Amino acid sequence: MTWDVLSIIGTIAFAISGAIVAMEEEYDILGVYILGIVTAFGGGAIRNLLIGVPVSALWEQGVLFQVALFAMTIVFLFPNRLLQHWEKWGNFTDAIGLSAFAIQGALYAVNMNHPISAVIVAAVLTGSGGGIVRDILAGRKPLVLRAEIYAFWAIIAGFLIGFKLVNEPFELYILFGLIVLLRVLSYTYKWRLPNRSFKPSTKNESISG
Amino acid sequence: MTWDVLSIIGTIAFAISGAIVAMEEEYDILGVYILGIVTAFGGGAIRNLLIGVPVSALWEQGVLFQVALFAMTIVFLFPNRLLQHWEKWGNFTDAIGLSAFAIQGALYAVNMNHPISAVIVAAVLTGSGGGIVRDILAGRKPLVLRAEIYAFWAIIAGFLIGFKLVNEPFELYILFGLIVLLRVLSYTYKWRLPNRSFKPSTKNESISG
Amino acid sequence: MTWDVLSIIGTIAFAISGAIVAMEEEYDILGVYILGIVTAFGGGAIRNLLIGVPVSALWEQGVLFQVALFAMTIVFLFPNRLLQHWEKWGNFTDAIGLSAFAIQGALYAVNMNHPISAVIVAAVLTGSGGGIVRDILAGRKPLVLRAEIYAFWAIIAGFLIGFKLVNEPFELYILFGLIVLLRVLSYTYKWRLPNRSFKPSTKNESISG
Repeated sequence: MTWDVLSIIGTIAFAISGAIVAMEEEYDILGVYILGIVTAFGGGAIRNLLIGVPVSALWEQGVLFQVALFAMTIVFLFPNRLLQHWEKWGNFTDAIGLSAFAIQGALYAVNMNHPISAVIVAAVLTGSGGGIVRDILAGRKPLVLRAEIYAFWAIIAGFLIGFKLVNEPFELYILFGLIVLLRVLSYTYKWRLPNRSFKPSTKNESISG
Repeated sequence: MTWDVLSIIGTIAFAISGAIVAMEEEYDILGVYILGIVTAFGGGAIRNLLIGVPVSALWEQGVLFQVALFAMTIVFLFPNRLLQHWEKWGNFTDAIGLSAFAIQGALYAVNMNHPISAVIVAAVLTGSGGGIVRDILAGRKPLVLRAEIYAFWAIIAGFLIGFKLVNEPFELYILFGLIVLLRVLSYTYKWRLPNRSFKPSTKNESISG
Repeated sequence: MTWDVLSIIGTIAFAISGAIVAMEEEYDILGVYILGIVTAFGGGAIRNLLIGVPVSALWEQGVLFQVALFAMTIVFLFPNRLLQHWEKWGNFTDAIGLSAFAIQGALYAVNMNHPISAVIVAAVLTGSGGGIVRDILAGRKPLVLRAEIYAFWAIIAGFLIGFKLVNEPFELYILFGLIVLLRVLSYTYKWRLPNRSFKPSTKNESISG
């Protein structure tokens, strides 16, 4: 039940995020649908592949498919003047999708009695896989590899669910809300994990004058 | 039989289209073969994956493989002066591949008694999948997501075949020719589906004075 | 045994090469791990997919996974001043990974009694697949499609192993060293295979004077 709810939320959120990216790139209506569908189902397809479930199991999700098409149609028809802060909405729907699918992917792997490492990978891939495919098809650098904290929240979800620290439906919903919140805070306040750059330190100390 | 003919046509056309893109990007002879093979077999691989056929079934297509290698060798050796309008040829071979593989993919899915939605997806993916992989490997934006009508014709093919409105070999060949024609007309006359752009309307009304 | 040694060498080398690319692109620590893991296991995943082994067989490689994580942690912590020639190290670790995985992939396909064409494809894909995924995720043109000879060495390895011309462990190790050497020579001295470019010959014969 919780699983189904998270699937629906994640599918709608990712379908909309894909549609938004497609509209930002000025794709036509079919490009909008294709990128939305790929974003909504790409993460699950990659997860199925890696976890050993036939990818064709996706076809049993006919309802989700229709829900995604419906959501994208609404976005496509949405009055222009209501949509002023697209970047924000793109990031926000992506955050909802990330959270819903990371938890859903982790539950999926736990149900199949996979070890904790597989649960974490399932959380990361289901949560970020659709977005990766979306960004590559749109010629962008994948969000998951950009500056602000992203995959880390999926890892946290996989960890908590893999060790059965979060179990009950209401706990899962709280976790869902928390992960969305943490991701939104990450890109709003530009939270970053430590990085080490090895680019040559090009100090342009040229003095002109 | 029709199926085999379409497979051969599509494989040759996509192998050549991949080889042309590779030569445009100045890849060496091996890059030409790799990109041609990926384009010729990529769509079928993705379709098999999503429809639940083992991807390794591709290995039974030994003859097609040799046909593709042969076609690419001819293109690679082709006298330079005969090849003046490369872009046209690249687009045209891609159109043939799209049409042949969209029909072939749809027939494949119908034979496996998949529902109409799966037939349409199989048509779109088999028709455009190889080109998507080709364009991403060459660092280009996928043709299917660019401005002129592309995937729509594959959807039409999937629809007509899925509902068994087109059945007989001669009907399928007519459909094949029609789809090629419609795609050629699309990029020649820049036919477009409606799109909605949400890019900020950057009216540079700066007054410098 | 030889197979295991090559797996470990290839995994470490590709994990480090992915980590280096991630640091060049200024990804955070998690991006470094993700790109390293994808590079180390991507080639094997694609090979499994195409050769008909369940991709989920990757999960039995728990030790390799830990080895990869360990290697990347070392690279991430490595003192900055020791690492002055990153590009060289990135190319060199990629060469080691290419050689180890090309041979390992070919042995894998031979063990499954695949025909020679499948052995060669397995060598090429296992050797270059991880690097292709790494480069696409980092927004770069895949190394295998760039100017210097790359996939050709994997083909040679597949050919020699497929026809059982190289069999014994010590022969395989010599082949491994040779392929690394040939790849290093290729990018050092810019060895190239013939190519044919069809770009319009833009002779800028403008006379300014």
